[in-house]
Amino acid sequence: MKIVVDAMGGDYAPQAVIEGVVNALKEFDCNIILVGIEEKIKVELSKYDYPKDRLEIVHAPEVVDMHDNAVTPLRKKKNSSITIGTNLIKDKKADAFISAGNTAAMVAASTVLLGMLPTVERPAIGVVFPTLKGFSFLIDVGANTEAKPQHLFQSGLMASVYTRAVLGIENPSVGLLNIGEESSKGGGFAKDAHKLMEEKLKNFVGNVEANEVFTGKADCIICDGFVGNIVIKVSEGLMESMSKLLKREISKSPMAMLGMLFMLPRLNRIKKIADYSEYGGAPLLGVNGLVMISHGRSSAKAIKNAIRATIREVEHNIIDAMEKEITNK
Amino acid sequence: MKIVVDAMGGDYAPQAVIEGVVNALKEFDCNIILVGIEEKIKVELSKYDYPKDRLEIVHAPEVVDMHDNAVTPLRKKKNSSITIGTNLIKDKKADAFISAGNTAAMVAASTVLLGMLPTVERPAIGVVFPTLKGFSFLIDVGANTEAKPQHLFQSGLMASVYTRAVLGIENPSVGLLNIGEESSKGGGFAKDAHKLMEEKLKNFVGNVEANEVFTGKADCIICDGFVGNIVIKVSEGLMESMSKLLKREISKSPMAMLGMLFMLPRLNRIKKIADYSEYGGAPLLGVNGLVMISHGRSSAKAIKNAIRATIREVEHNIIDAMEKEITNK
Repeated sequence: MKIVVDAMGGDYAPQAVIEGVVNALKEFDCNIILVGIEEKIKVELSKYDYPKDRLEIVHAPEVVDMHDNAVTPLRKKKNSSITIGTNLIKDKKADAFISAGNTAAMVAASTVLLGMLPTVERPAIGVVFPTLKGFSFLIDVGANTEAKPQHLFQSGLMASVYTRAVLGIENPSVGLLNIGEESSKGGGFAKDAHKLMEEKLKNFVGNVEANEVFTGKADCIICDGFVGNIVIKVSEGLMESMSKLLKREISKSPMAMLGMLFMLPRLNRIKKIADYSEYGGAPLLGVNGLVMISHGRSSAKAIKNAIRATIREVEHNIIDAMEKEITNK
Repeated sequence: MKIVVDAMGGDYAPQAVIEGVVNALKEFDCNIILVGIEEKIKVELSKYDYPKDRLEIVHAPEVVDMHDNAVTPLRKKKNSSITIGTNLIKDKKADAFISAGNTAAMVAASTVLLGMLPTVERPAIGVVFPTLKGFSFLIDVGANTEAKPQHLFQSGLMASVYTRAVLGIENPSVGLLNIGEESSKGGGFAKDAHKLMEEKLKNFVGNVEANEVFTGKADCIICDGFVGNIVIKVSEGLMESMSKLLKREISKSPMAMLGMLFMLPRLNRIKKIADYSEYGGAPLLGVNGLVMISHGRSSAKAIKNAIRATIREVEHNIIDAMEKEITNK
């Protein structure tokens, strides 16, 4: 198994990426291709001891940054790590590609270079997140911001396959994120999506309201990319603001600081549960190849865990599984 | 000043509503009309001591419940507290109407019976919420789920007037909730709304990403009713799930429980900051009358605080102020 990792993608690249790759090579049974500026990669790698026979470097002289627009890797920077990495998958020289770089550029490069799975019209990005019951999968969190009802239905199909194979959920339930429980809720778009999913998805459980996202009401929660992006960012922002508020309040009282100290082991457990970097990257589904988009702020741990999730995707051959599920509908 | 309160609206009506009204009468200088089933109201009122000269009851024999649809108060239950309460405003027999009842029914009754402010095409519900810096105002959280760009611009105008008058923010900034900072982000709808607001709102500060909703980046955050509803419900759900998780983890360790005890006074302060009931109701803006929609789960405190916010609306004559602002554009 060979996984390509974009050494230049993310706020802490190449340092965090390469540290994560080195740790993954030690822990997991896989081969990695690092794609990026060779010189910089070598400088970073020189800091570590690692199984050299399982690591390759492919030089990519250009870097797509966060200010580049979606088509940059296709038009202007054809020698970027994103373009070259994606082409390695396309040319079957590797099994999957992971990048914490520019999301829009990753979506565009994957869509154009790899093409779509049969009958799937648009790509969608999914994320695994913790709930009170275990894990759920929210899709789409930003690839397709002007979705049509059939795109949501297709996301529902792909999410079922993904959660079954990668998260090991036997018979995953699929819910539609909406502003009320009844099928009559939401605008025309939501109603049409509800109708289509009810007709065609046997594991459809109806609407899920946003206050039930974290309770584990459904294993897969389907929405358009605009709404999904709002959901993950509002959650991220709320957690950060609450944590700042907590620190601010506690620093005002020595008693509370002592109390905090007593609670620390338990609070750290919660932090671990809520930490995105535990679950690695976000799969880009719908394209004809395994592509994983990691958070821009990916730490070494997030990169390592994205590699772990990708290994599961390869082992379960999810591209074939999704293709089968989709063409059967 | 006379404020109509729907005695029958909300999960804990009429008990919580009437307790809140009694407390408001004691604390604030206002007259209240309770609208609802007279007999039930009288039974509840008999439990309290209160300034009787400032409370009136208007009998409404029908009740719109949470399962009724939006047009029920207009077509089937014309003698409901929602219909009669709204008509009291329309007929200038009172200054404002507060209900914790069926939101969709309240929006429909207000829109049809009171009509819209000149040039405003759709109603919008706003909410005041705490941020790291103070308070912000999010609008729309559910009245108009299929908005057009000009509806968002109109919400921006109304939100400016509201936050200036009711929250006392001198020169409120207005941001558009979007999935990226740059004006090129989002779908066609978001881009068009951005362009319109940039051209016509002098206090427009551009896009606000969802992870900055709680940091206080903008005083007014504008979005369509579907997205706004998702934002408040995801926040509510996340806070509830985190609190359950916290309790679950802490109950596993006596040390952590002791720590929690030490932290309690500070945690209660945070709880107070984050508690929706501190800020009362959510104003329905755009209709030609003061209408406040309270949370379905409103406690007596939430009702009392909704009355306090409504008193400020009446004192600042925000209907005239909004009309002036809008017709000047």
